[in-house]
Amino acid sequence: MTESGSPYDALARVFHEPNRLAIMSALAAEDKGIAFTDLKATCNLTDGNLSRHLKALEVSAAVRIQKSFVGVKPRTTISITAGGRAQFTTYLDALELVLRTAEQAVAHSKPAVAPPLGNEATA
Amino acid sequence: MTESGSPYDALARVFHEPNRLAIMSALAAEDKGIAFTDLKATCNLTDGNLSRHLKALEVSAAVRIQKSFVGVKPRTTISITAGGRAQFTTYLDALELVLRTAEQAVAHSKPAVAPPLGNEATA
Repeated sequence: MTESGSPYDALARVFHEPNRLAIMSALAAEDKGIAFTDLKATCNLTDGNLSRHLKALEVSAAVRIQKSFVGVKPRTTISITAGGRAQFTTYLDALELVLRTAEQAVAHSKPAVAPPLGNEATA
Repeated sequence: MTESGSPYDALARVFHEPNRLAIMSALAAEDKGIAFTDLKATCNLTDGNLSRHLKALEVSAAVRIQKSFVGVKPRTTISITAGGRAQFTTYLDALELVLRTAEQAVAHSKPAVAPPLGNEATA
């Protein structure tokens, strides 16, 4: 890992939180946007939780929140921005790199047959 | 995403924090363990930060922290536990699934040529 530009640094982002990862994945697949209620169901979140995550993503300009009316009923539609898509892609590339490194580390090293350093309680 | 057993749920773990991901990857590759000072350098962390993360990982029984002496010099060696390796592998499997979903979402949907919902400022 280099001092700067480490892929781990790239993970310290607005997208790394698991629910936000779910939200961004759902939005990335739907250019037309997703209704708040549908997004809530897809991501299995409460109104409050989804609102809170969307605010954080909106502050980062990753999503756009648009309110409209269908007849007299208000509708909130969330969509990913072009910038958000680009940021999310960069994040995913870093995540891919980090995951490959971890998978190689796990695969490379088999559990030791003889414990090298005293007691080998598996804890 | 199902209500329970969602791969996103599996990410809400002690390993998801980026520095801990770096620590666990380093440890997974070295069954003999890594000296505290080396792990600190590898993960580009301060003493305090590394200690804090290791404590959290030790509480989860994912790592073992062993103090010994090399002559009169104290040495702290960190190693991954068998249980930690198993937990980390489970986490990586969930991460892989989440990443595939996100990459497919991003790849599937090209940026819209005509903005579907009014102003398409890239924010």
